[in-house]
Amino acid sequence: MLFQVRMDVHMPHDLPQEEAADILAREKAYSQALQDSGTWRHIWRIAGQYANVSIFDVKDNAELHAVLTGLPLFKFMTIKVTPLLRHPSSIREDDT
Amino acid sequence: MLFQVRMDVHMPHDLPQEEAADILAREKAYSQALQDSGTWRHIWRIAGQYANVSIFDVKDNAELHAVLTGLPLFKFMTIKVTPLLRHPSSIREDDT
Amino acid sequence: MLFQVRMDVHMPHDLPQEEAADILAREKAYSQALQDSGTWRHIWRIAGQYANVSIFDVKDNAELHAVLTGLPLFKFMTIKVTPLLRHPSSIREDDT
Amino acid sequence: MLFQVRMDVHMPHDLPQEEAADILAREKAYSQALQDSGTWRHIWRIAGQYANVSIFDVKDNAELHAVLTGLPLFKFMTIKVTPLLRHPSSIREDDT
Amino acid sequence: MLFQVRMDVHMPHDLPQEEAADILAREKAYSQALQDSGTWRHIWRIAGQYANVSIFDVKDNAELHAVLTGLPLFKFMTIKVTPLLRHPSSIREDDT
Amino acid sequence: MLFQVRMDVHMPHDLPQEEAADILAREKAYSQALQDSGTWRHIWRIAGQYANVSIFDVKDNAELHAVLTGLPLFKFMTIKVTPLLRHPSSIREDDT
Amino acid sequence: MLFQVRMDVHMPHDLPQEEAADILAREKAYSQALQDSGTWRHIWRIAGQYANVSIFDVKDNAELHAVLTGLPLFKFMTIKVTPLLRHPSSIREDDT
Amino acid sequence: MLFQVRMDVHMPHDLPQEEAADILAREKAYSQALQDSGTWRHIWRIAGQYANVSIFDVKDNAELHAVLTGLPLFKFMTIKVTPLLRHPSSIREDDT
Amino acid sequence: MLFQVRMDVHMPHDLPQEEAADILAREKAYSQALQDSGTWRHIWRIAGQYANVSIFDVKDNAELHAVLTGLPLFKFMTIKVTPLLRHPSSIREDDT
Amino acid sequence: MLFQVRMDVHMPHDLPQEEAADILAREKAYSQALQDSGTWRHIWRIAGQYANVSIFDVKDNAELHAVLTGLPLFKFMTIKVTPLLRHPSSIREDDT
Repeated sequence: MLFQVRMDVHMPHDLPQEEAADILAREKAYSQALQDSGTWRHIWRIAGQYANVSIFDVKDNAELHAVLTGLPLFKFMTIKVTPLLRHPSSIREDDT
Repeated sequence: MLFQVRMDVHMPHDLPQEEAADILAREKAYSQALQDSGTWRHIWRIAGQYANVSIFDVKDNAELHAVLTGLPLFKFMTIKVTPLLRHPSSIREDDT
Repeated sequence: MLFQVRMDVHMPHDLPQEEAADILAREKAYSQALQDSGTWRHIWRIAGQYANVSIFDVKDNAELHAVLTGLPLFKFMTIKVTPLLRHPSSIREDDT
Repeated sequence: MLFQVRMDVHMPHDLPQEEAADILAREKAYSQALQDSGTWRHIWRIAGQYANVSIFDVKDNAELHAVLTGLPLFKFMTIKVTPLLRHPSSIREDDT
Repeated sequence: MLFQVRMDVHMPHDLPQEEAADILAREKAYSQALQDSGTWRHIWRIAGQYANVSIFDVKDNAELHAVLTGLPLFKFMTIKVTPLLRHPSSIREDDT
Repeated sequence: MLFQVRMDVHMPHDLPQEEAADILAREKAYSQALQDSGTWRHIWRIAGQYANVSIFDVKDNAELHAVLTGLPLFKFMTIKVTPLLRHPSSIREDDT
Repeated sequence: MLFQVRMDVHMPHDLPQEEAADILAREKAYSQALQDSGTWRHIWRIAGQYANVSIFDVKDNAELHAVLTGLPLFKFMTIKVTPLLRHPSSIREDDT
Repeated sequence: MLFQVRMDVHMPHDLPQEEAADILAREKAYSQALQDSGTWRHIWRIAGQYANVSIFDVKDNAELHAVLTGLPLFKFMTIKVTPLLRHPSSIREDDT
Repeated sequence: MLFQVRMDVHMPHDLPQEEAADILAREKAYSQALQDSGTWRHIWRIAGQYANVSIFDVKDNAELHAVLTGLPLFKFMTIKVTPLLRHPSSIREDDT
Repeated sequence: MLFQVRMDVHMPHDLPQEEAADILAREKAYSQALQDSGTWRHIWRIAGQYANVSIFDVKDNAELHAVLTGLPLFKFMTIKVTPLLRHPSSIREDDT
């Protein structure tokens, strides 16, 4: 089941640089593991923003919540969730 | 070059049914031809809305505009465009 | 899987009274059949508004969309969908 | 008398971890006591958000206010209250 | 139990004058009967707007809804409901 | 001359408790003196919010401003002012 | 007593030209009579908008309301009222 | 050339009192010098707000910008600029 | 003196096609004459929207207003005006 | 390919003056180098705001993102991107 998720990151400008670097490294590893397993289907950067648009493939709302709240950057993010489904005009196999 | 586009459709409730059916048939054909050629990369329905989230792959802003204003439903749509690019954490080949 | 849905109804004031009455009768029957089957878990009226707050229990986003777009009043509604899950503090069996 | 309440939690990121843990433990106990007594009818987590949607059953606005301002997390919450009543199409006994 | 209600009136400019006059006469009678019985505690005009701010005293949300949807102007109004209670600093007897 | 005023209070969470208690005590005394003199006609708490809805009776805008900026909590408040007048349908003597 | 008022005009595009011309002529006469008497202190056009910013000098909210609802264009306007008073830094005699 | 400017002041509550007093004194002197020279045509306080509505008479956008960014309070203000011109219905000489 | 202007066009879908074509032809001629004379410095289409972003070079607010209200499409447009000036970092001659 | 970008700057008022001066100097150099190379086509100050409107000419979304996130002031900016293209009515050579 697919969800579109937009994440906007707002890191406090007084966060120690080392702490920030550590969070970002863990964020990247976390994201790539989920991409690898197929849960995090797509991730794109939004031009000019510290933000991304992503597509998640999860079995239910509870899994989506667990994945998102597990993000190392979660407490610095504004998150917007949009539930998706196959469009009747789609001809692509991977739009489901 | 990728763009996310959200389209919300608002057809006037007094549009003659035949005219509506004709527009929708042309819309579907138009969308599927562009999916076929690779320009319209993804299309998903938004749950509970007469709306979709799509990903377009075009060579520039002008091509995007030509594709969107060519939609048979264009004059009944509210459209929101978000320019995208490859995310540094992406491991997928088709996120570019 | 649970979703909260808010529906605000805006019927055009020039809709023939008979047509309106027919739509409302079909809407009520449709809603009660889905309540009966367990899909439409709760429905409450919002005080002072021609609107309701509902809880749906569906197997996925696609079923939710089919249920909502099947509403006889769908084309006169503004719909807002919020995906829910069990809260870690809940002690109630029917909050899942 | 029923009210829908949405609570969004925003804890300051510099709150000492011990203080935060203590508030959260008291919040959980407070919520479960009110669920137990029937005042807090439902509580659901919103997917991807540090937020919940709840249904309260109170005798009047004053009781609702006392319950909400008594929340250990009250000062870190944005709260939205929507007064509800039985919907004429409801067939469920517990929608009142 | 008290509620503040703001009502903004938007009558379609093509409504026949006679029909409009009839609705307004019934609205005034309806309002004055409820003021007389004590349900409609206060009503004030908002300067420069076709709108009012009112205070209602009802026994529950259901009575408030019945009163508001019974307004002859209801279908031409945008309504905003705010649940109130006695303020701890109030010294007035009629603020409850 | 009447004004509706909504006041939302946002006290910084790091304000020393003693300072906060002192401000609140002065706020209560200030409000009750003005209620006593008839300037602060009504004050109601909004359910679930650290906020109130009030009705002021002043001789002009300048008096209203002096009263509001004199509030001990003024610098922690968001204030919204709505100028009111007698409604043509009012039958109450004290709605002027 | 001074009020700033912003008026945005939205005339329906299907209003008969003669009716529109008649309303506009009466609007102009009405405005100039009130300027002449000192009630309508200032009126400025907003660049690029069918809108104006005005300053009214009235004895109370009721007079302001009577003046505004008497505008021949009233039913085609969106009106925003801001109550003003003398600024402590003003050195101009006519800012009161 | 006239501009309406609304300025809302938000001074940080932890600004040392002496520093605040110094800024305010310089602000007043700055404003009065510009009123004196005719650049700052009008200034009114908004009732209940730490804000003003002003009319500036400048030779172009660049002069307006220089005047506004020179305000001692500039960095604590939210500013909204509205370009004005003579209204065709104005009969006042000083509305240009 | 420069202004940025955004124009969003909303033509009623029931406007006779001939009337629409006539307005659009006059709009184009009007725009090109002003570009030719140097008043309309730039005009760009916004991708995916029936809208443009333009830069105007006028001697004052009154000229800007005359130019914009003279647009054949004016009554079908939503217009947003932003006053500009030379940026201190600009190195381009034609940014003034 | 052209993009309009609006940048609003919000520097924390407690940023050490030296650090601020250093960032601003680097910002100016960065901007002028990009103007020099033709990437940053236009930059204008917005009257009364610590903000600018700019036009960028880049080969794709990725280049735009690299340019914007490289701004020394990036972390203190709110950025809004609007993709542009040649307008069919433009007669200017440099509007492409």
